[in-house]
Amino acid sequence: MLSRPDRLLSCLDLARRVEGGEITPEGIVDLCAAAIAAREDEVGAFTYLDIEGAKKRAREEAKHLAAAPLRGMPVGLKDIYDTYDMPTEYGSAAYKGHRPASDAAPVSMLRRAGGIILGKTVTTEFAHQQTGKTRNPHNLEHTPGGSSSGSAAAVAAGMVPLATGSQTAGSVIRPGAFCGVAAFKPSYKLIPTIGMKCYAWSLDTFGIYGAGVADVAFATAAMSGRDLRVDRAAPPTPRVALVHTHIWADASADMQNAIDVTARALRAAGASVKETTLPPLLEDAWRAHRTIMLYEAARSYAFEYDHKRDLIGPKTRDMLDEAAKVGVETYDDARRIAKRARPALADLMADHDVILTPSAPGAAPHGIGATGVASFNWLWTLMGAPCVNVPGLSDGAGMPLGVQIVGRFGRDRAALEAALFTERALARRS
Amino acid sequence: MLSRPDRLLSCLDLARRVEGGEITPEGIVDLCAAAIAAREDEVGAFTYLDIEGAKKRAREEAKHLAAAPLRGMPVGLKDIYDTYDMPTEYGSAAYKGHRPASDAAPVSMLRRAGGIILGKTVTTEFAHQQTGKTRNPHNLEHTPGGSSSGSAAAVAAGMVPLATGSQTAGSVIRPGAFCGVAAFKPSYKLIPTIGMKCYAWSLDTFGIYGAGVADVAFATAAMSGRDLRVDRAAPPTPRVALVHTHIWADASADMQNAIDVTARALRAAGASVKETTLPPLLEDAWRAHRTIMLYEAARSYAFEYDHKRDLIGPKTRDMLDEAAKVGVETYDDARRIAKRARPALADLMADHDVILTPSAPGAAPHGIGATGVASFNWLWTLMGAPCVNVPGLSDGAGMPLGVQIVGRFGRDRAALEAALFTERALARRS
Repeated sequence: MLSRPDRLLSCLDLARRVEGGEITPEGIVDLCAAAIAAREDEVGAFTYLDIEGAKKRAREEAKHLAAAPLRGMPVGLKDIYDTYDMPTEYGSAAYKGHRPASDAAPVSMLRRAGGIILGKTVTTEFAHQQTGKTRNPHNLEHTPGGSSSGSAAAVAAGMVPLATGSQTAGSVIRPGAFCGVAAFKPSYKLIPTIGMKCYAWSLDTFGIYGAGVADVAFATAAMSGRDLRVDRAAPPTPRVALVHTHIWADASADMQNAIDVTARALRAAGASVKETTLPPLLEDAWRAHRTIMLYEAARSYAFEYDHKRDLIGPKTRDMLDEAAKVGVETYDDARRIAKRARPALADLMADHDVILTPSAPGAAPHGIGATGVASFNWLWTLMGAPCVNVPGLSDGAGMPLGVQIVGRFGRDRAALEAALFTERALARRS
Repeated sequence: MLSRPDRLLSCLDLARRVEGGEITPEGIVDLCAAAIAAREDEVGAFTYLDIEGAKKRAREEAKHLAAAPLRGMPVGLKDIYDTYDMPTEYGSAAYKGHRPASDAAPVSMLRRAGGIILGKTVTTEFAHQQTGKTRNPHNLEHTPGGSSSGSAAAVAAGMVPLATGSQTAGSVIRPGAFCGVAAFKPSYKLIPTIGMKCYAWSLDTFGIYGAGVADVAFATAAMSGRDLRVDRAAPPTPRVALVHTHIWADASADMQNAIDVTARALRAAGASVKETTLPPLLEDAWRAHRTIMLYEAARSYAFEYDHKRDLIGPKTRDMLDEAAKVGVETYDDARRIAKRARPALADLMADHDVILTPSAPGAAPHGIGATGVASFNWLWTLMGAPCVNVPGLSDGAGMPLGVQIVGRFGRDRAALEAALFTERALARRS
């Protein structure tokens, strides 16, 4: 069942080829359609596809003289992003055939930048753990990760150059790692989450998948108008804090080795890499993440819990049963810990540009009924820090292993530059 | 056109009477229905009413043995709160007949607390300034304020004991002041805004109207499960900072007098009242509010701007035209000012429990084509501080004048206690 690696579509490369007249926007949609025809039946990345509509919009985009940066670039949207012209089912039978009245804000931002929505990708139910049909393109017996299962798999299978995710625990970085693609979760609220189904309002963060680090940076720059492109100059040499975290023992031998390999590659490329221990307050914050997520989920999903309980899956129901028991004092304590932990993390980062740490405990686990564990993501999501999954390594069985670059809150460009530096250091190694 | 003052419905009083068996939940709906029959034609507070449905739910609530705190309490919802069982039009022709798939989180919280949704109240379009049909119950030639126009007017006309609002600039406190009812805007994110139409995600805050301060405290406590009730003991004597702000000259003579009267009443009741000047950084923050609001509105309302421009009103369109011009650097500068201003305000408040300042520049202006000015609200919204409009004063023409109690972020109970203390001090005075 192990499949050959697919050829990834780089949005930067495609944008350059469109600009150079080597390919038309419609031609890009054709590339996507071919990859989808070849692999969608077995990968199952999409819940909805509109290839003909995308071609029509690609022809319209091609007529524009002043090219938008993502002109004609096909995008897959995790099916928690509202779209006015496609169904949006949040991965749940409770929303079968649901048609929102409007687009989510990031969808408008992508369309304004010239992006073309090719379809909606599989999400676990309400971005929690009730899995969908998606399989890992690298080995169909393995999970692609979740909750942004279809988006990571679609990019990994070369079906689309860009796809959006969202992260409340580890739902952007983990699937990126398991599927071997670049994944970027910007700082909390850098990209609005308006019109994305809310899981936990203090945590939910936009995310995006692409072939490489420069691709996700390019796309985020294009949609936000922010100076985040990292493809126009060599990235500066970063000062890296190597953070094993207190759950290092939960990382597989392969993952521990991947971090060692990355640290060596970074040093060989001239970067400083200093082993750094997190203070106990950040361990407390790591634990506080779950309390905050559950308390807020009990309110965000109150309508579904009260009115649609029979239609939601057992894993979602179990989570909401547990969430209903989290009291307001417990929540307030957790928020206080998070509030104190953010400046503590900033202090720790005073002498470092980024942190290097695992994206996940290891490669994608066997089976598609569960999406793996997000424990290496909780803390950074709660801290609102920009995170990048850097692809490029794999285990003995050829399954991708992702290493994570965590930046300082609000310093997204530095995080992307360091991630690009890391990606290149790993590439030079092989 | 000056009308007699209506008899307000106190939710606390009604809850006590339900508990004591003096009135049934259905009887409360009857009280609301009578006031609506008497005044809705001229006040125009509602866009949608379901009195029969409310009676049916009231009869069901009456059967419950374990009484929820708001059991059978009718609530009006500003029509930016999504409801699965009532149309939700956001005050806009662009959403004529729109039926959301689910309830907003605060709606679920109100229903769980036993509240009964009686109907949807008039909002200005997308909670900005394009006005609806609502008139001020105290004088039909005057605005009720906005954007929560219908909610404040419905409570003021005795049509409903509770109604929700939302504040992005001054949309909770100002209508409360203009209509002479208690209004409470809790700390930013104390109550989630999930399922409320987003205007600006850094600013949007839930709000609620009731007859008096103890009523809005009771309702917020009931829906949040937080210890916010202030009706069970005499409120402690507050230390009050009297803040005129740099726009004091914009306040009418009547409003300036109302603040003087309040300060005297507070002192007479034993409170300390110290005149306090805001540092220049807080003036900068006052200016930064508009930048943040516009930048975020350009993204929150991107879909409507791009796809429904012909259906939105000229004031909304003008705002969004201006919003489109706010650049990311301007926004980031404004956010940095806000971030520095919050601890500066906390320092200023170290020796005070609350601030006393106007709720609005004066009484409700003549005419219903505009909703008045929110300049006395911008800073506190941006700071995320809990704010209460304390009713009880009026100008020579009998129009209400509201004074504002602003608390420290996260100290909502102290803000409500000080507001209750103020309300009682003003009542003793007359």
